[in-house]
Amino acid sequence: MALSEFDIIETYFASRTVCRDDVKLGIGDDAAVMSIPDGLELVVAMDTLVDGVHFPANTPAEHIAWKALAVNLSDLAAMGAEPAWFTLALTMPASDQEWLKAFSKGLFSLADRYHMQLVGGDTTRGPLSITIQVAGYVPAGTALTRNGAKPGDVIYVSGTVGDAALGLKHLQGNETGSHTAYLIERLQRPTPRTEIGQALSGLASACIDVSDGLYADLGHILESSHVGARLQLEDIPLADEFRQTIAETEQQQLLALTGGDDYELCFSIPPDSVAELKGIANQYSCPLTRIGEIVQAPGIRMFRQQQQIEMSSIKSGYRHF
Amino acid sequence: MALSEFDIIETYFASRTVCRDDVKLGIGDDAAVMSIPDGLELVVAMDTLVDGVHFPANTPAEHIAWKALAVNLSDLAAMGAEPAWFTLALTMPASDQEWLKAFSKGLFSLADRYHMQLVGGDTTRGPLSITIQVAGYVPAGTALTRNGAKPGDVIYVSGTVGDAALGLKHLQGNETGSHTAYLIERLQRPTPRTEIGQALSGLASACIDVSDGLYADLGHILESSHVGARLQLEDIPLADEFRQTIAETEQQQLLALTGGDDYELCFSIPPDSVAELKGIANQYSCPLTRIGEIVQAPGIRMFRQQQQIEMSSIKSGYRHF
Repeated sequence: MALSEFDIIETYFASRTVCRDDVKLGIGDDAAVMSIPDGLELVVAMDTLVDGVHFPANTPAEHIAWKALAVNLSDLAAMGAEPAWFTLALTMPASDQEWLKAFSKGLFSLADRYHMQLVGGDTTRGPLSITIQVAGYVPAGTALTRNGAKPGDVIYVSGTVGDAALGLKHLQGNETGSHTAYLIERLQRPTPRTEIGQALSGLASACIDVSDGLYADLGHILESSHVGARLQLEDIPLADEFRQTIAETEQQQLLALTGGDDYELCFSIPPDSVAELKGIANQYSCPLTRIGEIVQAPGIRMFRQQQQIEMSSIKSGYRHF
Repeated sequence: MALSEFDIIETYFASRTVCRDDVKLGIGDDAAVMSIPDGLELVVAMDTLVDGVHFPANTPAEHIAWKALAVNLSDLAAMGAEPAWFTLALTMPASDQEWLKAFSKGLFSLADRYHMQLVGGDTTRGPLSITIQVAGYVPAGTALTRNGAKPGDVIYVSGTVGDAALGLKHLQGNETGSHTAYLIERLQRPTPRTEIGQALSGLASACIDVSDGLYADLGHILESSHVGARLQLEDIPLADEFRQTIAETEQQQLLALTGGDDYELCFSIPPDSVAELKGIANQYSCPLTRIGEIVQAPGIRMFRQQQQIEMSSIKSGYRHF
C-alpha cells in the first residue's frame, strides 16, 4: 500500500529525530524553532541533487541520501562550522517503501555521526530531487571564508583528489580496473571533512571545498582574495588506487585538477601556522598536503618540477548551464 | 547566449541582496553566516513547488516565484514569526533569461516587502522545481504552535477561504465567470498573513496556516492539542466573488472546507482575548471571523444553523501520495 505524505514523514523521518538542546520544536508544526547558543553564529548551506544530473538513475537510495547530506556538510566544513541541524525537501515520483527505508538509513547514518537533527522540510511528488539545507555553528567572527588568502600563504589540500571523477568514469562503464569499488565509493559516499574544517578555524586564511574540481575551486579563493597561485603539479595528492588506474602522469594531473565531487578541503595558510597542520592530520587520520603557494599576480601558474606547464585542456569545473 | 550558473546567480539573485545587520556573510561563499539577535529564537520552514504538481505548466515565472516564497512566509506567519532571510534551490531545465528575469522580479517583489535577504542556495539543471527555506524570528518562547488549543477557546480564520480552490478550477478551464481574474490571483499570488501572525503572538492558543484546506488544517490543531471542534458552517467567511460564482450553499461550504492553497490563518483563542482581535483586523485591514469553538470531544462537528450536518464527501486535504 502506498503511504501518505504524513505516514512517510512519521515513519521514515520524524521518528528518527535526535533531541538537541538548541532545537525547541522539531518536525510536526508549521515550522521548527531553534535557540542559537550564545556567542555562536549560524552557518547555512543548501545544495540540491537531481536524478540523472548529480547521480546516475538507479543509484541506490542509501547512497543518494548520504551524498545529499555529505555535500552540504562539506560546505559547512569549508566554513569551519560544527554541524547542528538540517531540513530536507524530498521530491519523488512515487511512495516506494523500500526506497524510503534505504534513503532514511543513508541519511541518518551520516546525520547521527554528527548528532544532527532533522527539524523539518517538505515531501512532494515529482521527478526525483533532494534539497537539503544544513545549519551549523561557529564562534562569532571565526567563519573560514574564501577571501583571506595572502601572498606568501601556503596552499594545502586534504585527502586525495580525482578519485570521484575517476569513479564516475567507472560507473559509466568507460573504465574498468581492480579499484572500481574504491573509486565509486569515493564518488557516492564522500566523507565531509568536518573535523578538519573546524580544526582549521583560526589557522587557515581561506578555505573552500573541492566540489567543482581543484583548479576551479582554488580559482574561487583566488578571485575572492584578489591574489594568484603557483601550483606544483607533482605535489597534488593522488590515491594509490587512482595512480594504478591511470598510468600516465599528465592524465593523472589533468583529472586531479579538473575532476569534481571529491569534497576535500583546499585552503591557504600563513607559513608560520603550517607547523600545526601535522598534528591535525594525525589526529583525524587525514593527509594534508602542500600543493603550492599564494602569489600576488592573479591566475594559476602550474609547474611540473621546475618547468611551467600550459594545460590548454583544463576546464574550469562543472557547469550546469 | 545561455548564462552559466555563476552568471545566473550574479545577475538575477546576488545583485538583489538586501543588507541586514543579522546577515554577516551572504551569497558568494561556501555558506552564509548569520548572527541571531539576542533574545530571539529562529523559526525555519521549507516548502517545495514542483512544475505540474503545485502549479500548472506554463504558469508565469513571476507568479511561481511569488508563490514559492509566499507559502513559506505563510508557515512563518502561522508561528507568529517576523521574516528575516531565506535560501533558494532553483532547479530548471534551461537557462532562459526572460524566465529568470520574471522569476527574480516576482521573488524580490515579495521579499523586499519584508526586508528579507536571500543569503544562499543552489541553481541546478533538471525538471522545474523550487525549494525555499525561510527563517524568521520570535521572542524566545513565544512561537505559536498547533498544540495549545483548549476547550472553550474560540476558533477564527483570517480573510476568506475557498477562493484559491475555485481559482484552480477556473485555471483548469472547468469554470468560468466574471470573477475569474480575482480567483486566479488568489491562487497564484496568495498574501501571507505575516503581520496578523505576529499580532496573534501571545493571544492565540494555537495557529496553523490553511494550505491543505480548512477542515484538514483545523484537524491538525485538534490532533496536536488533543481536543475537538464545533464549526458553524454559515459563519465560514466567503468572498463575494466566491459566492457569486458558486450559487449553491452546500457546494460553497464544501469547497470552503476542503479547498487548499488559501494561506489564511486558522487559530484558536481564549474567550477573554477575543476583544483584542477587532483592533488587529482593523489595523491590517484583514477580516478575522469566528467560525466555531474548541470542545473536549475529539473530531469536528459541523452545524448549519442549529442542525448538525454530516458531510460524507469531505476529504481530508490534498495528499501527495
